[in-house]
Amino acid sequence: MRNRFHEDLETVAGQVGELFGLVERAIARSSRALLDADRELAEAVISEDLRIDLLCRQIEAEAIEIQMRQQPVARDLRLLLGVHRIVADLERSGDLAKNIAKQARRRHPSAVVPSTCRETVASMAQTAQSLWRHAHQVFDEEDVETARGLDAEDDQMDSLHRSLLLAVIEGAGASEVETAIDLTLIGRFYERIADHAVAIAHQVVYISTGEVVG
Amino acid sequence: MRNRFHEDLETVAGQVGELFGLVERAIARSSRALLDADRELAEAVISEDLRIDLLCRQIEAEAIEIQMRQQPVARDLRLLLGVHRIVADLERSGDLAKNIAKQARRRHPSAVVPSTCRETVASMAQTAQSLWRHAHQVFDEEDVETARGLDAEDDQMDSLHRSLLLAVIEGAGASEVETAIDLTLIGRFYERIADHAVAIAHQVVYISTGEVVG
Repeated sequence: MRNRFHEDLETVAGQVGELFGLVERAIARSSRALLDADRELAEAVISEDLRIDLLCRQIEAEAIEIQMRQQPVARDLRLLLGVHRIVADLERSGDLAKNIAKQARRRHPSAVVPSTCRETVASMAQTAQSLWRHAHQVFDEEDVETARGLDAEDDQMDSLHRSLLLAVIEGAGASEVETAIDLTLIGRFYERIADHAVAIAHQVVYISTGEVVG
Repeated sequence: MRNRFHEDLETVAGQVGELFGLVERAIARSSRALLDADRELAEAVISEDLRIDLLCRQIEAEAIEIQMRQQPVARDLRLLLGVHRIVADLERSGDLAKNIAKQARRRHPSAVVPSTCRETVASMAQTAQSLWRHAHQVFDEEDVETARGLDAEDDQMDSLHRSLLLAVIEGAGASEVETAIDLTLIGRFYERIADHAVAIAHQVVYISTGEVVG
């Protein structure tokens, strides 16, 4: 019984790993679509979000089934509950990547990001990708130490976000109000993507230690 | 055993009801603080968010304890899992109300919302409050019919959100880029608050019927 249970858990963990891969790819590709004004890539991110959503539903249904069949306690129960929260963060981050791709598509063939803000937005995209790589590692290896380091990386994102809004206010290339709005939203999307990665790291610490952080 | 279980569930449901009350108050008061440039009220919303977060932690801990002790199945398990998701939506909406209050505080004593956008922002605030009143009712009375009606109200919010961004683009009172940024974020906060209310309604439908919607 216990063996079957742990096999089931590993299957679910494997699917969550696959989901991490899809979301990381969506973040990387939407960022590329945004910075290179690549409409085709933007369309690909938008249509592939359905695949992310379907995998989320599948993982949730399996986690519930395992729970009904096995009635886990303590750490195993924390893991199954944690999977639901982590899947919600993954799904929402997929949606945010889709939002970024939609911004790239909406202004095509014009670039959304003026040249003066390009470096900051590119840094935000890199920081988001690094945070998600780390969150994935934290989940895969139950790496509590790395989990605790994610907050510092998130501080970096918040500082980039402030720089971006400041650049928009100073009118660095943002002559149009419409550009200001787009950049404000894009900045917010990246900031939230980072927050979700941090939330996952905190969730893994909780699963692993029972300690509530963040 | 079953009786004790249902008593425990009712206690948790009562606490979630209390949490709804706190979040609804935060949304109403932050909106008032924003529209009336009321700094004291903004401070109250910001400091009371801690109370919301503490109650969230308490409810989550109790839901896990009940689950460990009682090993519920079927609808009861869906309810306990649903509580976690609903609490997450409530907590996040409290944060968004805090964000709105921070916007009110940041520009004090100046008004954040120019007179030309005032009506639209006031309508967004009213729609958010109505959506949350309905989400609360859906939860309290397991009112699946009202739950299905929330999407239409959310469409209203999306349409108000579009009007607001359009007014900002047309420069209706938004002479400064900084005002454009503030209004863009405020619009986004209300839109997300509405989405969380809808997510709760969908969750109640799932608890009640096992049917996944949205």
